[in-house]
Amino acid sequence: MPKINRYVDISTVDREAKKDYIDRHSPFIHCTNKAVKGTKLPVTVKVGNEFMHPDDPDHFIESVKLYNGDSILGEARFLSGTLGGGGSKSQAEVTFHVVPTTEKLVLTAVAYCTKHGLWESDPVEIPVT
Amino acid sequence: MPKINRYVDISTVDREAKKDYIDRHSPFIHCTNKAVKGTKLPVTVKVGNEFMHPDDPDHFIESVKLYNGDSILGEARFLSGTLGGGGSKSQAEVTFHVVPTTEKLVLTAVAYCTKHGLWESDPVEIPVT
Amino acid sequence: MPKINRYVDISTVDREAKKDYIDRHSPFIHCTNKAVKGTKLPVTVKVGNEFMHPDDPDHFIESVKLYNGDSILGEARFLSGTLGGGGSKSQAEVTFHVVPTTEKLVLTAVAYCTKHGLWESDPVEIPVT
Amino acid sequence: MPKINRYVDISTVDREAKKDYIDRHSPFIHCTNKAVKGTKLPVTVKVGNEFMHPDDPDHFIESVKLYNGDSILGEARFLSGTLGGGGSKSQAEVTFHVVPTTEKLVLTAVAYCTKHGLWESDPVEIPVT
Repeated sequence: MPKINRYVDISTVDREAKKDYIDRHSPFIHCTNKAVKGTKLPVTVKVGNEFMHPDDPDHFIESVKLYNGDSILGEARFLSGTLGGGGSKSQAEVTFHVVPTTEKLVLTAVAYCTKHGLWESDPVEIPVT
Repeated sequence: MPKINRYVDISTVDREAKKDYIDRHSPFIHCTNKAVKGTKLPVTVKVGNEFMHPDDPDHFIESVKLYNGDSILGEARFLSGTLGGGGSKSQAEVTFHVVPTTEKLVLTAVAYCTKHGLWESDPVEIPVT
Repeated sequence: MPKINRYVDISTVDREAKKDYIDRHSPFIHCTNKAVKGTKLPVTVKVGNEFMHPDDPDHFIESVKLYNGDSILGEARFLSGTLGGGGSKSQAEVTFHVVPTTEKLVLTAVAYCTKHGLWESDPVEIPVT
Repeated sequence: MPKINRYVDISTVDREAKKDYIDRHSPFIHCTNKAVKGTKLPVTVKVGNEFMHPDDPDHFIESVKLYNGDSILGEARFLSGTLGGGGSKSQAEVTFHVVPTTEKLVLTAVAYCTKHGLWESDPVEIPVT
């Protein structure tokens, strides 16, 4: 069964190589801290915060999924070469837009690296008024 | 974070409604019990074994993913209406083809229901000679 | 074969219902008019400009693809209900990020409506320096 | 705008390299020549008929879509390496299952090669009784 790697606060990690490995694979959710019912809310998912991931043909971030609880809100798929291609590094990034209809959102993002599998963000809870 | 429901042997489940709920959402992997290196292997994933799932616009099996260990082998996405549409029931099904290059495959499938989230199959181990 | 509907300048269209039909299905590309080699460029695709599309279970904008020439740069898939759900209208929207490596980009977007098929944007040419 | 390459009967093509190029990129639809309303119909899409396509990290068949008229029936996405990987050749293949509800199906398949873009099959018309 596929392992789901979860983000670990890298300030608690000693080795630089491990910090880099965890950070560059982890999706981070960026959005406002509250939302309005019926109003479009942009939610950006960026893979990597302080570190960057290669964009090689055999090693790249291939997809990002955004969930609200157990429900998929959206999915983006990428092809290698769109972030500079072989030899370069970058952070895969996509902005979804959702219109909330419930009291709160509990967002999580999952990224897939073609060499290092599935990575899940910390959940982000957003009250909706 | 999205919950991943895992298949439970329904012969151990008492309530008929619960058997049906578990079975109709679970992906089952169908393939030969051994494979040959370099030779195409068909792997069928069928959602539901003894029970069937609705194909309603707001409630249907939307995708099936096939993994080997932590690696995605393939993904299929479906649209509601292709299995008979509103009011009918069926079993979503897709056959992938993979050419193994390693000593064994450890296959798992994950299905997504638009109302009841992610469901993972039991893993299937296939020796490759 | 799937027909690909292409955007028509709606100021040349007489009937209001037809203006609405064309506009609400057409993807529009929003980005800066020049890009820098090796620097991340956000490219937003929004479906509809002056009009909005329903987000009903059996009728919604299901995906947006972004191409550079004949190459896919990225694809986003949506589920019904994420833009307010049944009875509400909105504009599906996604922002991709690409790092250009060539002299220019020739971007096109294609959206898919579950009832009215494929719709292609006008191409947008962006010089890269 | 993305060009859609269409299959050309390769017996009418002189150059062997061109026959190979056209054939190995073209999706071919394999299914029975009639269907029954409400009964699941397997539809196989195989990319290439007499020739095979590489499965290299930077050059592989990345997806196959199946349409009925203007409607998507299903989509499969593949990752490089699942058909033997670098240096080997094969034919990407997927079997979808649809339950027809109308008088006929008019199926077309579209494949995407990461180097050579979109390729469309001849349409296949299937009466449904």
